[in-house]
Amino acid sequence: MIVNITLPNNTSYDITIDRLTNIYFDTKVVVVTNPTISGFHLEYLKEKLSAKELSIVTIPDGEEYKNMQTIDMILNHCFENRLDRKSLLVAFGGGVIGDMTGFAASIYQRGIDFIQIPTTLLSQVDASVGGKTGINNKYGKNLVGAFHQPKAVLIDPYFLTTLPKREYGAGIAEIVKMAVTFNKEFFEWLEQNDLTNEENIKQAIRKSVETKALVVSQDEKETGIRAALNYGHTFGHVIENETNYKTYLHGEAVGIGMVMANALALKVGLISEQETLRVKNLLEKYEIPTSYKIKDVQDFYEHFFLDKKSLDNKIKFILPKGIGDCVITNEIKKDDVIETLKAFN
Amino acid sequence: MIVNITLPNNTSYDITIDRLTNIYFDTKVVVVTNPTISGFHLEYLKEKLSAKELSIVTIPDGEEYKNMQTIDMILNHCFENRLDRKSLLVAFGGGVIGDMTGFAASIYQRGIDFIQIPTTLLSQVDASVGGKTGINNKYGKNLVGAFHQPKAVLIDPYFLTTLPKREYGAGIAEIVKMAVTFNKEFFEWLEQNDLTNEENIKQAIRKSVETKALVVSQDEKETGIRAALNYGHTFGHVIENETNYKTYLHGEAVGIGMVMANALALKVGLISEQETLRVKNLLEKYEIPTSYKIKDVQDFYEHFFLDKKSLDNKIKFILPKGIGDCVITNEIKKDDVIETLKAFN
Repeated sequence: MIVNITLPNNTSYDITIDRLTNIYFDTKVVVVTNPTISGFHLEYLKEKLSAKELSIVTIPDGEEYKNMQTIDMILNHCFENRLDRKSLLVAFGGGVIGDMTGFAASIYQRGIDFIQIPTTLLSQVDASVGGKTGINNKYGKNLVGAFHQPKAVLIDPYFLTTLPKREYGAGIAEIVKMAVTFNKEFFEWLEQNDLTNEENIKQAIRKSVETKALVVSQDEKETGIRAALNYGHTFGHVIENETNYKTYLHGEAVGIGMVMANALALKVGLISEQETLRVKNLLEKYEIPTSYKIKDVQDFYEHFFLDKKSLDNKIKFILPKGIGDCVITNEIKKDDVIETLKAFN
Repeated sequence: MIVNITLPNNTSYDITIDRLTNIYFDTKVVVVTNPTISGFHLEYLKEKLSAKELSIVTIPDGEEYKNMQTIDMILNHCFENRLDRKSLLVAFGGGVIGDMTGFAASIYQRGIDFIQIPTTLLSQVDASVGGKTGINNKYGKNLVGAFHQPKAVLIDPYFLTTLPKREYGAGIAEIVKMAVTFNKEFFEWLEQNDLTNEENIKQAIRKSVETKALVVSQDEKETGIRAALNYGHTFGHVIENETNYKTYLHGEAVGIGMVMANALALKVGLISEQETLRVKNLLEKYEIPTSYKIKDVQDFYEHFFLDKKSLDNKIKFILPKGIGDCVITNEIKKDDVIETLKAFN
């Protein structure tokens, strides 16, 4: 199945959800991957993908390497293989690989094309679509980067067969995010169906990607509605930052972040307690963490201001409005936030 | 006087050639400058420019600092001052400052606005207009960067009063480039008028900026005609690289590069010997270097392939076709290039 995404500037690309078919590129191609994915699936990829000149660059695995040094590794490989402006990068891995490959492509010789072949559930349902690329630094997550859309996204569910259970859960967290913020029916479907079943997960990927495509096509650069996709992320980013990106997978931090956002939404009267429990139960069904001990509430609060969505010293929160709808607001009182955080203290 | 530039995607900005007037920005503003410009002109700028919050970041002066470390300096300053997505960077200096400020703006939180206030003749006539940003690395010049258009370009000829003579000449080299490639009348006017005269230089700046705006508005991303603006640069970049960016100013390397390009154009019958002499004489009138001793011809030739314009192992040359016109070609025979280079051996 194919989901098309058309951007405000009328460029468009296809997201294909299916087994990979044979593709040939009449250019130089560099595949960016990591040792884990490469060990499991590089041979499979090489059977499908061929090019005029194909080379592989393997970068270290993990969020802690999502930095400028690793970008330099990718760029140096490209320079040494004399990639030109018509060359192509292929992101072959999870969200970290996708974000970094996209960013490297956006700045190599002022921008070349790239495609996404996401191998984790999280990157298949969310990260690989939409053109957000970037790296972390000491100030926070994804604070340096670019909007650079891929030329295509190829989602092959076969890669999920080797995905560790925790990473599978992290992907489901982002699926839940899409449902809570935009689609009540989808949420109910998620409550009733087992996402470890292959046919179900394909449906869930399609539904998530369709939701994301619709949002991004309206607001590529996140000046409005796209911010809603950050539900759970405002809190989640602080959690990741406080734990040095080591304790939680991104999707897990988002899981906790959604629970926190729901607590705040409950406090300001946007959601019922019963609805917050339904979200929590759905997350826990897949063993996604839903609790976190905040060490210093004031410190946690200060961290919000490094978020890209914070403008004029106001924090932008994405809060569910019941299930299936949400509000984007920077009018939440500091006291309400602090009190909500204290409940996690 | 104001020159407008409208890009293919219908965004547009003004290039103002005049004394600065008072401007207030209702956002956080960071001015990026270097110790030299700051010493001469920061007080003057501060009289004109004010903002909700204004801070200055001073980066080391010189092409050898046009690298990722300096970009990090700028970004860190922005993070520490909590710039948000509505904040603004101001490039206050020459081409190096402009290229780096623009690149930092393009990747800070996936892109914020910037304006150019160029202080050297070279950046006033060329570098500040058109949205090319970037840094150098060990593989060559401007190989990492982005297309990121400024919101405005403010060209105040007052800054030229403190410009060293060599830098003035380097700027004139880029003016000559515009004339040779696109405008025969302008070239004749340059032969007849003294560019050290203030009124004349203002006219030359206007004419150069108009030419550049016209080219960029047709071809922002350099897929076609914009490449012509690289006349002299294919050779010039190799010269700068071979001399570690230390011996020649960029405009000086371009001056030598134009003489080399002309020699190649003469060899393949695109220009007459007399025309090449007219260009050389015009450059030498302003003491712009026109000769260079190539140590190793084969090595020099190999360096061409790292140029962003080289595709499929073919070097793209921009060669004058008489004076006032040019051709962009990747069909020059290697032998002709080698023989031309040997004349500089």
